[in-house]
Amino acid sequence: MKLDNFVLDVDGVLTDGSFYYSREGKLYKKFGAHDADGLKMITELIDISFISADERGFEISNKRVSDMGFELELVREEDRYQYLASKFNIETLVFMGDGYFDKEMVDKAAIGIAPLNALEEVKKVANFVTSKSGGDGAVFEACVYIKKLIDENRENK
Amino acid sequence: MKLDNFVLDVDGVLTDGSFYYSREGKLYKKFGAHDADGLKMITELIDISFISADERGFEISNKRVSDMGFELELVREEDRYQYLASKFNIETLVFMGDGYFDKEMVDKAAIGIAPLNALEEVKKVANFVTSKSGGDGAVFEACVYIKKLIDENRENK
Amino acid sequence: MKLDNFVLDVDGVLTDGSFYYSREGKLYKKFGAHDADGLKMITELIDISFISADERGFEISNKRVSDMGFELELVREEDRYQYLASKFNIETLVFMGDGYFDKEMVDKAAIGIAPLNALEEVKKVANFVTSKSGGDGAVFEACVYIKKLIDENRENK
Amino acid sequence: MKLDNFVLDVDGVLTDGSFYYSREGKLYKKFGAHDADGLKMITELIDISFISADERGFEISNKRVSDMGFELELVREEDRYQYLASKFNIETLVFMGDGYFDKEMVDKAAIGIAPLNALEEVKKVANFVTSKSGGDGAVFEACVYIKKLIDENRENK
Repeated sequence: MKLDNFVLDVDGVLTDGSFYYSREGKLYKKFGAHDADGLKMITELIDISFISADERGFEISNKRVSDMGFELELVREEDRYQYLASKFNIETLVFMGDGYFDKEMVDKAAIGIAPLNALEEVKKVANFVTSKSGGDGAVFEACVYIKKLIDENRENK
Repeated sequence: MKLDNFVLDVDGVLTDGSFYYSREGKLYKKFGAHDADGLKMITELIDISFISADERGFEISNKRVSDMGFELELVREEDRYQYLASKFNIETLVFMGDGYFDKEMVDKAAIGIAPLNALEEVKKVANFVTSKSGGDGAVFEACVYIKKLIDENRENK
Repeated sequence: MKLDNFVLDVDGVLTDGSFYYSREGKLYKKFGAHDADGLKMITELIDISFISADERGFEISNKRVSDMGFELELVREEDRYQYLASKFNIETLVFMGDGYFDKEMVDKAAIGIAPLNALEEVKKVANFVTSKSGGDGAVFEACVYIKKLIDENRENK
Repeated sequence: MKLDNFVLDVDGVLTDGSFYYSREGKLYKKFGAHDADGLKMITELIDISFISADERGFEISNKRVSDMGFELELVREEDRYQYLASKFNIETLVFMGDGYFDKEMVDKAAIGIAPLNALEEVKKVANFVTSKSGGDGAVFEACVYIKKLIDENRENK
């Protein structure tokens, strides 16, 4: 099994899914430790990119994702599957998501990953459920898992 | 049993009840994942609205509630029961609250829902206590529960 | 046993002890649910006031305490015991604190209360340890406890 | 065993490793209770200083560290070992860190300390793993441990 792309949802994956509101609206998101280290560890083994359906928080998520050196696409929840299926090869795609609208992609991607805090129905269809929650090291753990998969594939050649 | 309206308290239900102060006063509240998805899921099955007694934080709560497409009323804690009883039909009302002053409504509404973090005395009188806390998916879980109740009612007709 | 005054530390009692820094310094503190309801419940039974040693965060704490209708004194940690012993009657004082420098007062007050998150050595000398942590309902629980003590005292007269 | 210096990583040690982003970038970090009390307790027994690899959050961390009266150096993760080995005597150094790039120093320092939230591989090589997480009293607990070590060394002379 070859793995070419790793696409991650942002909210609930890089964060615990929470956001901070003032009277001006959505202002902050909280990002956790270790995840940037994990992504750096596999960045030369697989292409990494992010998607988000959170329009109001897009600039916040985009700032964090681009600070780590990656790209973020705004994709409506309903369009998620179509967007990913048209842009990537599902059979070499790793997808990580936690929510109601991520279920289809977690199910259909070559490797579907869900963080501990994902909805039960998403965890049920995932190939791998991290022991940590989003924003608390889930992405680091996913990266270690992906690195192991890729290393094993190489050895088996 | 017909269910027409779903009224939710904000603090402790859409949030964990905390708020962030600077020297200027109450500035932020933290809202969690999945809840907006849950409300979207049942928005055509039942009328949804929110109440809050938090005057200082009203504009924060109102911004979040209106960003999700719903309305928020400022109702003093002591007036809560009278306000709801006069505006809604208690016998077709679902109410979700966590605090000392929510107890009466959770008790008297057709269906009273309390999040895991509610006061013990509120949980005791609730028809349903979510397994998640406010701000951590309690409202999503309540929406799944309400959807099931409404679906069952329809089948029984 | 007569109880006249209830003095509370702020950080770790009304909050979980954390604070938020920007490059400008200490900017925010997070306050929890239910505590204001609890204090309101006993405000006519006992005099309530607050102390804090946090000079940099004083205006933040003071804004919250005065929003609830109470007074806050800045008292250096080393002066805590002397200040309280000179201003209040230790034998009718309820004190609630969590930290290294609160231990003496928790020990010597008529009733010493520690939140779950207090240092072990403070909990050891407390008359009552709440089942909740500071910023997560510990003060509400302390107020219920105090109300019960005062009600029992009255009945025994 | 003589202990001369105590060097601490900031993120994940003084904090839980999280940071708050707005659309402007990294804005806040959250610091916990008790740690400043712990450092004050041992400040005359051992030299204390901090390092961090977080360039974008450096001014935030530096503000907190200097508010407590200590110094912070920006040291790239890859240079961490070399920097510390050249500046300090490894055989009298206590080092506390939680992350992927801290492992070598936690392993090689005279005393390596890891907070509960550290990566498993870091905890494996530590002399002492605190029962509390970073930002939740881990540094206070480390200070109590160091004080005990130093006191024991003195008694054994």
